[in-house]
Amino acid sequence: MDTRIYLPESRMPRQWYNALPDLPTPLAPPLNPETKEPLTPDMLSPIFPDALIAQEMSPERFIDIPEDILDIYRIWRPTPLVRARRLEKAIGTSCRIFYKDESRSPAGSHKPNTAVAQAWYNKAEGVKRLSTETGAGQWGTALSFACSMLGMECTVYMVKVSYEQKPYRGILIRTYGAEVFPSPSTRTNSGRVMLERDPDCKGSLGLAISEAVEDAVAHGDTKYALGSVLNHVLLHQTICGQEVKEQMAMAGATPDYLVGCVGGGSNFAGLILPFLPDKLDGANIKFIGAEPKACPSLTKGWFRYDYGDVSRLTPLLKMHTLGHSFMPAPIHAGGLRYHGSAPVLCNIVDAGLVEPRAYFQKECFDAAKFFLQTEGFLPAPETSHAIKAAIETAKEAPAGSNIVFLYSGHGLLDLASYDAYNKGQLVNYELPQETIDKALLECPDVS
Amino acid sequence: MDTRIYLPESRMPRQWYNALPDLPTPLAPPLNPETKEPLTPDMLSPIFPDALIAQEMSPERFIDIPEDILDIYRIWRPTPLVRARRLEKAIGTSCRIFYKDESRSPAGSHKPNTAVAQAWYNKAEGVKRLSTETGAGQWGTALSFACSMLGMECTVYMVKVSYEQKPYRGILIRTYGAEVFPSPSTRTNSGRVMLERDPDCKGSLGLAISEAVEDAVAHGDTKYALGSVLNHVLLHQTICGQEVKEQMAMAGATPDYLVGCVGGGSNFAGLILPFLPDKLDGANIKFIGAEPKACPSLTKGWFRYDYGDVSRLTPLLKMHTLGHSFMPAPIHAGGLRYHGSAPVLCNIVDAGLVEPRAYFQKECFDAAKFFLQTEGFLPAPETSHAIKAAIETAKEAPAGSNIVFLYSGHGLLDLASYDAYNKGQLVNYELPQETIDKALLECPDVS
Repeated sequence: MDTRIYLPESRMPRQWYNALPDLPTPLAPPLNPETKEPLTPDMLSPIFPDALIAQEMSPERFIDIPEDILDIYRIWRPTPLVRARRLEKAIGTSCRIFYKDESRSPAGSHKPNTAVAQAWYNKAEGVKRLSTETGAGQWGTALSFACSMLGMECTVYMVKVSYEQKPYRGILIRTYGAEVFPSPSTRTNSGRVMLERDPDCKGSLGLAISEAVEDAVAHGDTKYALGSVLNHVLLHQTICGQEVKEQMAMAGATPDYLVGCVGGGSNFAGLILPFLPDKLDGANIKFIGAEPKACPSLTKGWFRYDYGDVSRLTPLLKMHTLGHSFMPAPIHAGGLRYHGSAPVLCNIVDAGLVEPRAYFQKECFDAAKFFLQTEGFLPAPETSHAIKAAIETAKEAPAGSNIVFLYSGHGLLDLASYDAYNKGQLVNYELPQETIDKALLECPDVS
Repeated sequence: MDTRIYLPESRMPRQWYNALPDLPTPLAPPLNPETKEPLTPDMLSPIFPDALIAQEMSPERFIDIPEDILDIYRIWRPTPLVRARRLEKAIGTSCRIFYKDESRSPAGSHKPNTAVAQAWYNKAEGVKRLSTETGAGQWGTALSFACSMLGMECTVYMVKVSYEQKPYRGILIRTYGAEVFPSPSTRTNSGRVMLERDPDCKGSLGLAISEAVEDAVAHGDTKYALGSVLNHVLLHQTICGQEVKEQMAMAGATPDYLVGCVGGGSNFAGLILPFLPDKLDGANIKFIGAEPKACPSLTKGWFRYDYGDVSRLTPLLKMHTLGHSFMPAPIHAGGLRYHGSAPVLCNIVDAGLVEPRAYFQKECFDAAKFFLQTEGFLPAPETSHAIKAAIETAKEAPAGSNIVFLYSGHGLLDLASYDAYNKGQLVNYELPQETIDKALLECPDVS
């Protein structure tokens, strides 16, 4: 068997898989934050195009991928499924370890799977410009890539601390032709109010979301795009797991364990959801989601309705949450620092179908370095959590098991994190129980 | 036809192609810089292992690739040949443009093809540590990757100005487990002498070579590795052109133009040399080498014996040279700032078998941005020269021609260059004729 299993383009999935009709219990609907009544589609119209709102609530199991989107996907898809033989040997496991390499996209992560789709549906409804927020920069890069391919404008509000610490991300976003501003910016009321209050404010994802949404609402030709959490985002990511299914069949194997890192949850859900019907049908396949001990929403959070952002602007979502005002410790895996997670993923976690695990950041960087020095490639700090969980799984699993983990992104624009690691400057954060208890108190009371 | 043409591992070349016996004229031998007599193998023994010295002078057309090296190559090889359909469409050409994607290696360039081979042959002869120099950092990254895979130590002397400007390169090298020092360093006599003379010296490639060679000579368990120019380096790179041959056959096409960028010449030679016998047999295939107007060794240099370094420590090589004391303008394509080029490549350039072209750096960055915004991926500044030449070729070539260019590396660690480009800060340098005339005067007199 070749090291890399390539799916021919002719077998690239032509539909996304929508897990909504297959969930073990009906998904709790998003609620209007004022009335606490279920949201109606028209409430989302100012910020999302109709096609994506329809996908968000679709009862259809499969949704056709438009040919134009497939055409852009072909720039990097299908992505290879890689047999990590050198890693297996170094661990001394009899398990086979595969990784699905989503770092091969132009933006360097799985994010373009949904960025391209979201941009295309917006363009089809006459939208000229997309606004979004980005933390560490992966999502902003992906959306600016997508807009570049489709000839759309793109405005990215990047959390100021990341904007300053990761200048390469901003440069790449600009080179794709998008504009990027440190948030808080003077371009929105949300930004200006914050800057008046604190001129040195370094920003937060919640504030950047507020700026991006405000920008979209204020301009008729502009809508907003979100890179994780929502149903339609997870939907677009399912192309990944569907490819894994085909590639494992090409390898003459079936996966026993599917492993991924979890922040908002879209990469992990994209991997596991296509296997959900098999699992519900009794297939012996385990889903393992790895998160930081500094931000353990799935392992320690409350499964409750909560706001998606600090400012309480978003709809209420039922999810595992550490509280919407939670400020995570400054771990380097910026993409895993969200207080909640995708409602679809949380639904199946609550049903006991996923085993969440939490790790310290140092052990994850150890795993990343081990991977680098065996498999050769530099993983993103987020991805290091999946690697750590895959290695642990290989140690515990029955001999000969097939383990597939999602390699969500490369770490070439995260080298400052590795510098801190090499210098022994990383701190292991673990969220104290008091903070988790407090989260329950601030969740809105929804009966 | 799929966008990416993947060669199965079973068809990965198992031999390197050695062009020495097929050159149109015998290669002028390297000369001892003192006696100006041809170099004997034993003179190279203090710095290179016997196997590589033998390859440097081998009369064999094909040299078996050891199984251990193939095993490491499989981490990223065979690399895909990509049909650049979106680029073709944007140019409006009827030509088919393909690119051989060497950026897919762990180090992000073609350099590991020889780094792995050199490290392995050294290890086989008991060498524990390799020392080398690096300018922009691509070669240092590749060698530290190779040494990591083989459990060897690696010491990299990195030109101080690059060490300071490109901190991510140094971090990546260290994460692979190698040590990297800014050159001039206090670790060698060459470095100390320079620092005494000028404590603020920012270094040069020539000085870094001196430090690396001195380190190797001073330590019995250490040898030296060079990333370009020499015959054995070009030999190892021929795996790339051989793969292209197979992949074009899979596409049912033959290349009409092979295009690459030229600094030391190893990536371009790796692409074209396997096609040299075909060309000599009358095949209608054109070799186009692209270099910067700021460092136009092939288009403007003298084809003479010259030293490989500023300090006149290396053997004399017959090559196109701008003079060994030439200090190129500070263009961002650091890998194309060498005063000479590989003797094997210069031999066939002198025979009229290659069309060299020189470009300004701004037009190359324009081409790189055009590529980014059509094909999605960010090229290295060196690679931008190949892209520029490929686009120009597509405009001039007969309808329906097949153009293959070598995508030698990604630009993710070169984003500072793109920042300068985006801000309109790039300068177009062109080497004045006086400098070229002066080069002739400083070439040693070899009859």
